[in-house]
Amino acid sequence: MAKRSVLALLVLSGFFAPPLAAADLRSVVESYVERNQRRIVAELVELLSIPNVAADRENIARNAEYLRRMLEKRGFAAEILPTAGNPLVYGEIRTPGASRTLLFYAHYDGQPVDRSGWKQADPFRPVMRDGRLEEGAREIPDFLRLDRYEPDWRLYGRSASDDKSPIVALCAALDAVREGGLRPGGNIRVVLDGEEEAGSQSITAAIDRYREKFRADTLLILDGPVHPSGRPTLNFGARGIVTLELTVYGPKQALHSGHYGNWVPNPALRLAQLLSSMKDERGRVVVEGFYDGIPPLSAEERRLLLAVPDDEQELRRLFGFAEADAVAATLQEALQYPSLNIRGLRSAYVGGEARTIIPPEATAALDIRLVKETPGNELADKVLAHIRRQGYHIVDREPDDAARARYPRIVRVQRSRPTEAYRTEMDLPQSRAAIRALQSAWGAEPVCIRTSGGTVPISQFIKALGFPAVSVPTVNFDNNQHGENENLRLGHFYRAVVTMAALLTMELPEH
Amino acid sequence: MAKRSVLALLVLSGFFAPPLAAADLRSVVESYVERNQRRIVAELVELLSIPNVAADRENIARNAEYLRRMLEKRGFAAEILPTAGNPLVYGEIRTPGASRTLLFYAHYDGQPVDRSGWKQADPFRPVMRDGRLEEGAREIPDFLRLDRYEPDWRLYGRSASDDKSPIVALCAALDAVREGGLRPGGNIRVVLDGEEEAGSQSITAAIDRYREKFRADTLLILDGPVHPSGRPTLNFGARGIVTLELTVYGPKQALHSGHYGNWVPNPALRLAQLLSSMKDERGRVVVEGFYDGIPPLSAEERRLLLAVPDDEQELRRLFGFAEADAVAATLQEALQYPSLNIRGLRSAYVGGEARTIIPPEATAALDIRLVKETPGNELADKVLAHIRRQGYHIVDREPDDAARARYPRIVRVQRSRPTEAYRTEMDLPQSRAAIRALQSAWGAEPVCIRTSGGTVPISQFIKALGFPAVSVPTVNFDNNQHGENENLRLGHFYRAVVTMAALLTMELPEH
Repeated sequence: MAKRSVLALLVLSGFFAPPLAAADLRSVVESYVERNQRRIVAELVELLSIPNVAADRENIARNAEYLRRMLEKRGFAAEILPTAGNPLVYGEIRTPGASRTLLFYAHYDGQPVDRSGWKQADPFRPVMRDGRLEEGAREIPDFLRLDRYEPDWRLYGRSASDDKSPIVALCAALDAVREGGLRPGGNIRVVLDGEEEAGSQSITAAIDRYREKFRADTLLILDGPVHPSGRPTLNFGARGIVTLELTVYGPKQALHSGHYGNWVPNPALRLAQLLSSMKDERGRVVVEGFYDGIPPLSAEERRLLLAVPDDEQELRRLFGFAEADAVAATLQEALQYPSLNIRGLRSAYVGGEARTIIPPEATAALDIRLVKETPGNELADKVLAHIRRQGYHIVDREPDDAARARYPRIVRVQRSRPTEAYRTEMDLPQSRAAIRALQSAWGAEPVCIRTSGGTVPISQFIKALGFPAVSVPTVNFDNNQHGENENLRLGHFYRAVVTMAALLTMELPEH
Repeated sequence: MAKRSVLALLVLSGFFAPPLAAADLRSVVESYVERNQRRIVAELVELLSIPNVAADRENIARNAEYLRRMLEKRGFAAEILPTAGNPLVYGEIRTPGASRTLLFYAHYDGQPVDRSGWKQADPFRPVMRDGRLEEGAREIPDFLRLDRYEPDWRLYGRSASDDKSPIVALCAALDAVREGGLRPGGNIRVVLDGEEEAGSQSITAAIDRYREKFRADTLLILDGPVHPSGRPTLNFGARGIVTLELTVYGPKQALHSGHYGNWVPNPALRLAQLLSSMKDERGRVVVEGFYDGIPPLSAEERRLLLAVPDDEQELRRLFGFAEADAVAATLQEALQYPSLNIRGLRSAYVGGEARTIIPPEATAALDIRLVKETPGNELADKVLAHIRRQGYHIVDREPDDAARARYPRIVRVQRSRPTEAYRTEMDLPQSRAAIRALQSAWGAEPVCIRTSGGTVPISQFIKALGFPAVSVPTVNFDNNQHGENENLRLGHFYRAVVTMAALLTMELPEH
């Protein structure tokens, strides 16, 4: 604990005076969970048993109604809000005397399933195992008849971790808080998205329609896995993304590399030269202005980044590489900058299919991860300006004969609409309150992720709402999210209930 | 004719005294062909009707026997020579008093056929059309009953051009020469290869066994298309080839480009950087020593290269590019140098399949075309030394964990066994004799290709024989060689008979 934070010291010293002693809240909730494991798990299993692929409108409606009733049972004024796409489930609990409002977000749709890869008959009929499938765990038969489930057991099924269990944990936390005679720190609103895995377009489009319902002081996003270390985690931002696909043109048809090699330009070489002009040998982007506008990290930000307990040596071993790129000193710091990644290359054939030809074209698929200071279109424009400086004529479709005759270097660029980054500054009152709540409940500072590397569609919703958002991941890191055999480790689930209770009861900052 | 050659002037001035006035030979042969079109075409059609894919042993044997009889009819001492693979067909005619011997080579096997792409029921049942299929030519029904076939008509069938028609043309030329009361310029030997399209391994391996039979002063290779200009062509060499496949390694599995982009090295970028380090922006190879050992072209060599009537502007228009690579001033000159061509690239996915990942590996397939002065293994070694200078550890299989932990840059290199280049100097007496023979027959200097860009398996046979080889292409350039709807333009076929007669009767150089 040499790196114990100033915040933590402040909390431990009683400076912030949490509404309930940490040990009290935690023991109240843990006791509740201990006594109600069967009921809590049964509710999750029932919810997981309703298929929830976003395109399956009929079952989506069944999910929405089930969730509305779940909220209603907890005293929410609950309703289903129509959108242009899948409906939202919404609920509100007014806390007498409260002037602050928390808006909890989660999503109830799940990734599509390819049943062939699952080790159970139906991803929508949850299976309990006594550990990790990959480590030879055995199935627990008739588990719904049991009263207790060990923390190392795992529940296998689509959306067990992404993202139905946080909804059940939130409901259980509310039950526990009430049973313990505690009360929420403010008004509680919940909105459940029915198409996050399909891009969250409808919830973002519905903001104007439901602005009053969505109004709050803090958005708490319940989604994602905790840090691999297993420690409670808060996440204050996510990188955005814009993609570019570059196709460099050679001869109009594949030509014999013997008859024309040394004379007809090779588009694969040209593409290689273009790509290598964009980054140096240690992976730093050398496109002019790519990193512009990003202020240096403050001492506190740097401290929080360093406090993230990444085991970089173990990651290098696990992924099998000797030396990281040199964009920044650490993984966490590297994620504070935009990246330019070649996600695919294609030109003619390799291996057994290779032919002795000069290929007609060569394509690179790039993704550019964005940070808050680097909007997607600005960054893409800088890359395009760089490409022009390499002598390229940029087209947006296959070049015609006139263009081919005129320009020695032609590249077709297809760019996506960006999903922007978001970041909630960690020293905002709302951020500090969330950090404090977890610190208080768990007796240790949570892992604070300033910017998560990946991109979430919810970032568009966050930006449109306009108030601070903090993401609260709770599930196990190795949950096979989006893949086959998605699972939830019960120990993480139980801890999620404590974390949710801490957030429900946290002292909200003054206006 | 501003560039009329010194050789041509010598010939026209009677310095070399050809055995028969050119006009006489040509008119004798053309008259013979005119009167025997039906018989000559019928023999070709019969030969084309025997399927000849190298792997089809039974039909290969039928071809060999048919060809043996064709030679026997012309007075050859003909036999079938067994090899480790498909048999050779061999024949010899001794010319009384002759001390010189010509060895003619052709191949009787053909490329495999994909019947679905052919516009006729069976590629082995030849079809006559009144022009090019691509230009809407119509089929001539019952053409075998006709007595005359126009020069623009084309015979469609596998091996019509590659490489059965040269065999029939040689036999017809011998018939024409004899009917005209002329005689061969020396002893005539013929060897017909049954697996050229499968690599000509067996004929090369059989050299020691049949060395006496193969002994000659000049090898004349009857294969390939004339220059696109349609002018009589001689070909004095071909580039060789060695291939390299480079696989650069990134993380052991595909990683999320958001979570790890900027930290985990990207193998596609590394590969792009490696490839672009090998050539400059105008396509010149910058690998150390790549062009070493290639002497400058002599004035006469340069003149002959410039005399090749390539229409580079038209080729650029046809292939759709604005500016040629800068290895040399012209296409013909560029072919005198080794080339390094990226024939394929592959890393993860592009287009609709693209995923936001850091790919685990990236592969480039390269082919290196060789010239006489740059043996394949030497050139490949230079490329490997270059790769090492870029900081790479080279492996010959997937790297293990220890290698991954130790070396920041790892590339797997798979290299092929080279097929070397060959080149017969154009000022050798044998070369000059062949040039003179065509000059004499056609009244104009033939197109002399110093080095053809492509690679031929026969080069190994040529090198092993050890005496000068000249290649005599005769078929039309647009014959769809190796593809569907292979065809022979009859005008080219008729001219082939004249060219063969000129070679059969040419004055051979003194020892």
